[in-house]
Amino acid sequence: MSEALERLSRRIGYTFSDPGLLEAALTHRSAGSRNNERLEFLGDGVLNCVIGEAVFHARSDSPEGDLSRLRASLVREATLGEIARGLDLGEHIRLGTGEMKSGGFRRASILADALEALVGAVYLDGGFGAAREVLLGLYAKRLATLPDADELKDAKTRLQEYLQSRHMALPEYSVVDVSGEPHRQSFRVACRIEDAGVQTCGNGRSRRRAEQAAAQQALETLQRERC
Amino acid sequence: MSEALERLSRRIGYTFSDPGLLEAALTHRSAGSRNNERLEFLGDGVLNCVIGEAVFHARSDSPEGDLSRLRASLVREATLGEIARGLDLGEHIRLGTGEMKSGGFRRASILADALEALVGAVYLDGGFGAAREVLLGLYAKRLATLPDADELKDAKTRLQEYLQSRHMALPEYSVVDVSGEPHRQSFRVACRIEDAGVQTCGNGRSRRRAEQAAAQQALETLQRERC
Repeated sequence: MSEALERLSRRIGYTFSDPGLLEAALTHRSAGSRNNERLEFLGDGVLNCVIGEAVFHARSDSPEGDLSRLRASLVREATLGEIARGLDLGEHIRLGTGEMKSGGFRRASILADALEALVGAVYLDGGFGAAREVLLGLYAKRLATLPDADELKDAKTRLQEYLQSRHMALPEYSVVDVSGEPHRQSFRVACRIEDAGVQTCGNGRSRRRAEQAAAQQALETLQRERC
Repeated sequence: MSEALERLSRRIGYTFSDPGLLEAALTHRSAGSRNNERLEFLGDGVLNCVIGEAVFHARSDSPEGDLSRLRASLVREATLGEIARGLDLGEHIRLGTGEMKSGGFRRASILADALEALVGAVYLDGGFGAAREVLLGLYAKRLATLPDADELKDAKTRLQEYLQSRHMALPEYSVVDVSGEPHRQSFRVACRIEDAGVQTCGNGRSRRRAEQAAAQQALETLQRERC
């Protein structure tokens, strides 16, 4: 194994019996057919399992919805990308020439995929216990400083809870306009809260995003009116 | 432990050290506050990990997309519901009076959730290895007769592959109409394949479903024209 890979092994706290697995985990599909896509699939499952268990224990009184939101924030691409950067994983990833030139080793998606593949490789090489230990090490700081689950709620969820706590009927969302070229459509959605006499609109590149924007507007309107 | 729960333990091939965990796994949220929702969250992660690994090994040459589709078909609610029915899990689930009267013990969603919670409970009680063994037992037949991954592809994916294999440009989808009451909107989507001079339409309760319907129409049109 090269010196660079030995340094990486020390950083994750795991030494591979089969260094070929480590090399495969660090090979992007642009660089060859023995790449990390299958290992990424495997690692994604291990990651969800281990981080799910960690938040389950860390928040022993939280309902399922809070656990799901916490886990989602920990396993999303941006978080994985940060952890990968902390390991200097980009240095070790083998990319095809095109990806190399466009700076692919800095892209969060490529870093995140390689980190998941690394977890999958540890799982194959050393079993679940080894992969779990590596992950708990990499996530130690984040698990010790978990955010409040409420902070992670999206606007539609926060609006719904705001209304429910005041015994008001739920909002109705409806698409009022779809415009733009076929490959670049824009949605306009109305959010109507009958009990409060409030109607807001939001725009977005998808129906979902437009609904979130409309819900955010509605929340701000309701909160302004209360002052 | 009751005779019924002992029978269930024999069926899954696992005996709990802490039978309280088994009881919690079988308690629907309608029946009390110590219910199975958190265990379901935990079990869902274990399930994805174990079944992911199983398809990874069963299809050692398949690309990641095929593995994802196979796993999705194995862990979806309908499949979990079937496995739960095979265990007569409905007999053992504790439901609130309302759910009981409406026949909740037969509903796939309640059965699937309880099965996931059962997996989460085995994981807490006996660790990953025990949960893995229980799952591989429950899935043995399905893993031995995995479907062809192509059969599991949705219409949009099949249409895309059809076009790519003929070096034709990808279809363009666009929403052409949104109608109906706010809480019950209906979408009409056009699918346009310029290279083939084909345009079809599909309807659905969501944009996604309307796109799938339009893609299915397009596939049928293209295949008819080839005859």
